Amino acid sequence: MSGPQHENMFEKIALIGIGLIGSSISHAARRGKLAKSIAGSARTPETVATAKRLGIIDEGFATAHEAVRGADLVILCVPVGMCGPIAAEIADVLEPGAILTDVGSVKAAICKDVAPHVRNGVHFVAAHPVAGTEQSGPEAGFAELFDNRWCILTPLPDADAAAVEKLSTFWQALGSNVEIMTPEHHDLVLAITSHVPHLIAYNIVNTATHLERVTDKEVIKFSASGFRDFTRIAASDPTMWRDVFLNNKDAVLEMLGRFAEDLAALQRAIRFSDGDALFKTFSDARQVRRGIIQAGQETAAPNFGRPKDSK
Amino acid sequence: MSGPQHENMFEKIALIGIGLIGSSISHAARRGKLAKSIAGSARTPETVATAKRLGIIDEGFATAHEAVRGADLVILCVPVGMCGPIAAEIADVLEPGAILTDVGSVKAAICKDVAPHVRNGVHFVAAHPVAGTEQSGPEAGFAELFDNRWCILTPLPDADAAAVEKLSTFWQALGSNVEIMTPEHHDLVLAITSHVPHLIAYNIVNTATHLERVTDKEVIKFSASGFRDFTRIAASDPTMWRDVFLNNKDAVLEMLGRFAEDLAALQRAIRFSDGDALFKTFSDARQVRRGIIQAGQETAAPNFGRPKDSK
Repeated sequence: MSGPQHENMFEKIALIGIGLIGSSISHAARRGKLAKSIAGSARTPETVATAKRLGIIDEGFATAHEAVRGADLVILCVPVGMCGPIAAEIADVLEPGAILTDVGSVKAAICKDVAPHVRNGVHFVAAHPVAGTEQSGPEAGFAELFDNRWCILTPLPDADAAAVEKLSTFWQALGSNVEIMTPEHHDLVLAITSHVPHLIAYNIVNTATHLERVTDKEVIKFSASGFRDFTRIAASDPTMWRDVFLNNKDAVLEMLGRFAEDLAALQRAIRFSDGDALFKTFSDARQVRRGIIQAGQETAAPNFGRPKDSK
Repeated sequence: MSGPQHENMFEKIALIGIGLIGSSISHAARRGKLAKSIAGSARTPETVATAKRLGIIDEGFATAHEAVRGADLVILCVPVGMCGPIAAEIADVLEPGAILTDVGSVKAAICKDVAPHVRNGVHFVAAHPVAGTEQSGPEAGFAELFDNRWCILTPLPDADAAAVEKLSTFWQALGSNVEIMTPEHHDLVLAITSHVPHLIAYNIVNTATHLERVTDKEVIKFSASGFRDFTRIAASDPTMWRDVFLNNKDAVLEMLGRFAEDLAALQRAIRFSDGDALFKTFSDARQVRRGIIQAGQETAAPNFGRPKDSK
């Protein structure tokens, strides 16, 4: 979707937070020549220095307040719980007409926290690029992260239509497909496609490493039999994920309830040797991966295309 | 570990079952020139024909009884529940001095089912190569599958020491590291590193596709946020996995109990907004992946080294 018509569609992008997502936005925006300049701020001076060194930002600042001055696109790339406080911090320096957005994995809580601070003709449109890796920090970013992934926009009912359209065009120029839904529906969908999967991955790792009859060394040695897959998403940033669960409580607890109910049924099938019930559940699950591969959201290569000796 | 000293260490290998594991054993054995000939039998004539066409087997048979004649190494590469019946079928044609082994993911049940049929100076040593992909069938196999992975041998107390040694050498020549333990301990270790992870992967896929408020299309579209990882192991062979759960009931139920207990604690931490408890669990989990990468059992590349656009 990128092309000359999107060149310099923004004068100045301000990235508040320069981790995996912030730095990837910069790389993809540079690739598409989408902004004349990119500024950024981060929690630590080290991150700002790294981001400058890597060319992720043209100008670096210690505070969001300084970074957003003169920006016509401000993207909050920080843990969910930080969005409200930063919106409050930058409220008075945002330019009229600027678009304020974010990349948080939870949308209703962010809309509730950020919206009250938006004024001065600023257009707030919340967003969530559904993409990532298990790595964190400015060095983890790359231009292709959003290619062929989905970015979900969750504009509030009174959102400015032109701003929604421009942000949508921006995400398409970064490589994404764009979908629009309500913050509440987003949180329900992501609870099952992302939040509960992360929680159970964290949980199985936790369970496996607190056993008495199986050592941690054994768990590591024989992890290629399934366990290691779960450790990838369980290696994701702990602060980010703490904030996700604290801010999407209802949807996560609802989906977790369903997961537990279904797991109890499988547990019972095992206990009573109901091979037919197990076989049916396992066969049905196989189809779902085919659908994901056909939708271009996963590689068809065995083992995710891991190097064959997995080193 | 392969080298000229292992050339033709077996006259004739008989593969009973020629799926992912059987065919990979053949490829790796050919690579190491470990056998003068490889014979095989499979449940369907199509599999036998495919295996012959791909050069996986030199001679193909409709029954195990025919395939094992004259073999000095017989490897049962069939679902766990088939090992006992096949051992009974071939009991009278196994040659004195031959090694009988298997590749099953469960060991105590197989030892119990197979051992009574072993006679005539045949050496039974159960084995489990801890390696695989989500794919099945003779076309899925490749020579590198066992490289740098672990193969667990679970000889019974009265096993022939020379046979255990020879089988261990064989697996090392196929590329594996070898570990020896009791069948019971094997089943406990694999319950947590493999069986429960597969069960919860199957379960989350099942839960996600039976929701009322989130469509299957949405689950597929936004799967790159975590869910798709689980679909890989949930795409594994349903028959194989049904048999695993039917034959490792006690260890699986024990580990599932621990998993559910730990999950309830995380659920409670979410309900009562205990951010510190969540953060600690998530931080600890991160370390485990580092250990697995250091142990050479996983790639360090982000996203398992998936192609960057995941297509």
